[in-house]
Amino acid sequence: MSQHVVVIGGVALGPKAACRFKRIEPGSKVTMLDMSDLISYGGCGIPYYVSGDVPDAEALRTTAFHMIRDEKFFDEVKGVDVMTRTRATMIDREKKQVCYENVQTGETGVLDYDKLVIATGATPRKLGLPGENLKGVHYVSNPHDAECIRASISKGQVGTAVVIGAGFIGLEMAEAFADMWGVETTVVEIFDQIMPRLVSPTLAKMGMEHMEEKGVRFHLGESVKSIEGDGQVQRVVTDKRTIEADCVIISVGVLPNDEVAREAGLKCHERGGIVVDEMMRTTDPDIYSGGDCAVIKHQITGQPLFLPLGSMANRQGRIIGNNLAGGESSFDGAVGSFVVKLFETSLAGTGLSLGAAEAAGFDAFSVMLIQLDRAHFYPTKELMTLELVVERGTRRVLGIQGFGSSGDAMVGRINAVAAILKFKPAIDDISNMELAYAPPFSSAMDILNSVANMADNALREMNRGVGPVEFEKLWAEREAGDYCFIDCREHADAQPYMERNPEHWHNIPQGEIYKRLNEVPEDKTCVLVCNTGARSYEAQIMLTHKGRSNVVNIHGGMAALKKYGLEL
Amino acid sequence: MSQHVVVIGGVALGPKAACRFKRIEPGSKVTMLDMSDLISYGGCGIPYYVSGDVPDAEALRTTAFHMIRDEKFFDEVKGVDVMTRTRATMIDREKKQVCYENVQTGETGVLDYDKLVIATGATPRKLGLPGENLKGVHYVSNPHDAECIRASISKGQVGTAVVIGAGFIGLEMAEAFADMWGVETTVVEIFDQIMPRLVSPTLAKMGMEHMEEKGVRFHLGESVKSIEGDGQVQRVVTDKRTIEADCVIISVGVLPNDEVAREAGLKCHERGGIVVDEMMRTTDPDIYSGGDCAVIKHQITGQPLFLPLGSMANRQGRIIGNNLAGGESSFDGAVGSFVVKLFETSLAGTGLSLGAAEAAGFDAFSVMLIQLDRAHFYPTKELMTLELVVERGTRRVLGIQGFGSSGDAMVGRINAVAAILKFKPAIDDISNMELAYAPPFSSAMDILNSVANMADNALREMNRGVGPVEFEKLWAEREAGDYCFIDCREHADAQPYMERNPEHWHNIPQGEIYKRLNEVPEDKTCVLVCNTGARSYEAQIMLTHKGRSNVVNIHGGMAALKKYGLEL
Repeated sequence: MSQHVVVIGGVALGPKAACRFKRIEPGSKVTMLDMSDLISYGGCGIPYYVSGDVPDAEALRTTAFHMIRDEKFFDEVKGVDVMTRTRATMIDREKKQVCYENVQTGETGVLDYDKLVIATGATPRKLGLPGENLKGVHYVSNPHDAECIRASISKGQVGTAVVIGAGFIGLEMAEAFADMWGVETTVVEIFDQIMPRLVSPTLAKMGMEHMEEKGVRFHLGESVKSIEGDGQVQRVVTDKRTIEADCVIISVGVLPNDEVAREAGLKCHERGGIVVDEMMRTTDPDIYSGGDCAVIKHQITGQPLFLPLGSMANRQGRIIGNNLAGGESSFDGAVGSFVVKLFETSLAGTGLSLGAAEAAGFDAFSVMLIQLDRAHFYPTKELMTLELVVERGTRRVLGIQGFGSSGDAMVGRINAVAAILKFKPAIDDISNMELAYAPPFSSAMDILNSVANMADNALREMNRGVGPVEFEKLWAEREAGDYCFIDCREHADAQPYMERNPEHWHNIPQGEIYKRLNEVPEDKTCVLVCNTGARSYEAQIMLTHKGRSNVVNIHGGMAALKKYGLEL
Repeated sequence: MSQHVVVIGGVALGPKAACRFKRIEPGSKVTMLDMSDLISYGGCGIPYYVSGDVPDAEALRTTAFHMIRDEKFFDEVKGVDVMTRTRATMIDREKKQVCYENVQTGETGVLDYDKLVIATGATPRKLGLPGENLKGVHYVSNPHDAECIRASISKGQVGTAVVIGAGFIGLEMAEAFADMWGVETTVVEIFDQIMPRLVSPTLAKMGMEHMEEKGVRFHLGESVKSIEGDGQVQRVVTDKRTIEADCVIISVGVLPNDEVAREAGLKCHERGGIVVDEMMRTTDPDIYSGGDCAVIKHQITGQPLFLPLGSMANRQGRIIGNNLAGGESSFDGAVGSFVVKLFETSLAGTGLSLGAAEAAGFDAFSVMLIQLDRAHFYPTKELMTLELVVERGTRRVLGIQGFGSSGDAMVGRINAVAAILKFKPAIDDISNMELAYAPPFSSAMDILNSVANMADNALREMNRGVGPVEFEKLWAEREAGDYCFIDCREHADAQPYMERNPEHWHNIPQGEIYKRLNEVPEDKTCVLVCNTGARSYEAQIMLTHKGRSNVVNIHGGMAALKKYGLEL
């Protein structure tokens, strides 16, 4: 049976669903509409085009075998009819018709469909502020934006840039400006950390520290009041300061384009986004949707999730393609995996951060571990930081986030946890996770196993500790004399800190704890620190064994404090 | 309650179990015996010490914070008593005693235990051939071997080396010899591929091709008959040739050291290895075992598995430590993850290879995909090859293996599958696996999603193809005229092949298939090829749609043929 499938939207999900369907039913007809003149581009690549990593904007819309994905390509190679510059104005579900209008000529028309796919994507959120339409103020949405931004930089017109919003795109754009072009770049974020809700304040600070070292400035907890200039943007005014800007990027999230669906009476979420079932069907069984205009299920909270990512769109698109052809493929939801490269480092995660877990009502805690990413004797080893989020009573793992180098090592660990999150893993599933082992790739006890072991030790109350945020508070109160800071490393490592803080920094190497127990004050809280928290943990066990239970271990040790930006 | 725990064996599992137990029960006593003078070393690091990547043999037995793990370290830092050069000669289970003997002095003694851990590890398998004890013939087992091998190389005594056995250690040692020292290195393997049973012949050939490019020679399907020399080794004689050798490495597997357990009446596997339950207990509930001397459960076949890896030993050691202290931790088996670096590439895998799956009685098939490891427009992209093994009827994923660069990208993908294998994932769990996405790390449709999609397409019979092994056979029969080889790439890509093979190599770009259908012979099997198998897959669908179903797609395309070493 030959069908006519109409697809509204020509980026990511739309083309994927169209092409997949055509491969299963080559005899059926597919018509794909898009408002823009460009279709099927990799919007996620825009920051890398702006930075110059991707030399040519066309690369964002070519296949891996160098063919441009334009109308002709879809016709000849994929057998899909494409109408660009064409907006779907109305869906008539009874007549099974889509009304459209050419956005250039105003010409209108009607398409009959057997099945319909709504892949209208999302639109960058606007701030609704004065000056938002000045020249030099950009959103990061399509290749036209990208070309416009890069052209102005390469012409030398951009000496200063302000990025509003410290999510993925904002941070990637800040890197693009500062790294390749040496533009003086400032990021303004309304929350008090970068990547709010996605990572803990500690991991966020580590990523931000690295970006600051690379020359990016940050103003957190500030809201933009206006964008000013005379035709061309000149400055950004926040509630705390004025920042010069030849170029402004607004990256404060996106909103799902669900109007045409909403007007057709399809169920949408109250905060936006088309509601779909596991087969990616809307409330009309002949209409499918997915990608940036739809909401899916969060596999951990069970709540609706808006997760506008190209990877989600592609996977869902294939499922829609199957189901258009009578298949019964299902998409069982998402756990929210992400990664963002920040110069020579990256932040990544999956599942819930501690903040998100608490907001979702879980009785959760997290542990943070710093450890080498491969055998400590292997020359290319690097420190990685992982934070595991666990539900207290059930020992269920709710998520993991990390900060590490810009290589693939950390994202590999995050992906391994992402893979099992939907099976409701317990701590022990991560403790025994069978990561492939060889010294160039991992430790015999991989950091992922270790961070789960650390969560186990925390639940057993063997490892009672805090991270850099809390250490900073304890250290700030050092003059009050309630705390005794003990460095559990060998003397040579501790010496410089003792010299700089002669009254507060003490040194008892972990192996000497029992012998020198009399040096440990009984009337103070002992704050134990070593390189990464491993030896101080052992020291904590020894002190506890000797009845000194008022002991705090600094998780991540000096390595975490340094990455966090604390100078002692 | 204070206990005395005796641990027989001081490498990997032994120290891990001992230290973990001491952390939980600091008031108990642990005595650890080892036959050698060295303990707690990272044996897996030996090839990297021989190569010079690890400058100093001591690094193999230091902690990440540079302390040597010797008797003093275990005493002061871990609270564990160590007796080196001490062999456990007998276990008296009734009296709960271990009899021991000092291997240097012959002095004997007896230790009472409350609980016992047998961590006797494994011993390199010998060939039982003449000449095996000549000077210059080595096993790769402990740091003494390592120092001996490296000393002879660095003194310039090794111009030629023969490695017997092409498993992990053999290949790592071959790289160490050839890479850093320029030693003329030959590997002899009795099976007809490297890493037999672990990866398919195709992946094995890809890894071997790369090693050959780096100067290592291979003789497969040959068995060693004798090792010859006059005091010092001079040559290796196989059933086919004589190979000069100043140094010989024998790496033909290891055998579990289960004698002391067997003599004590503990249940052992008929092919060797102490039998343990999920709590790592032997058939005597007061005696635990694990690591290289024990057999565990294979989570896919359910069969006993001997998996001598340092990573296994460490994870099991922690579980034993917990259970010695009254815990109820369990180890639910293994799926057999592995990775080996081969110069600038690596081979990795988890679960069952196709050969192993068939041997275990599964009705299995595999698909092989070559795809870029990150966004195709991102500058550091590289091709990765993955082979997914699936049970036909149930769509259950049984394993995955891969060949890729020596970076972390591939092992990250393997680990993500390793993580879920015990949950009996179906193809669709991999198709929708939520790998973190950003262009510097992955494609929107990651290669891991794609290889599962390919398995789905194979089951739907939409993608009917073969790999390089079968292509080689088809190509060898080209003169018979039963096959029509069609290159589905653009003309410029196909041209050189057409010039070299004017009678056999045809070119119809995939987008022109419908227009040029008359050029496709109806009486021959069409063999379709493109860069990686993606466009030829689309061409196959188009031809099938037009009634031409006698079509074979070459999986992996020209990229696979090249990596496989085929010149056309």
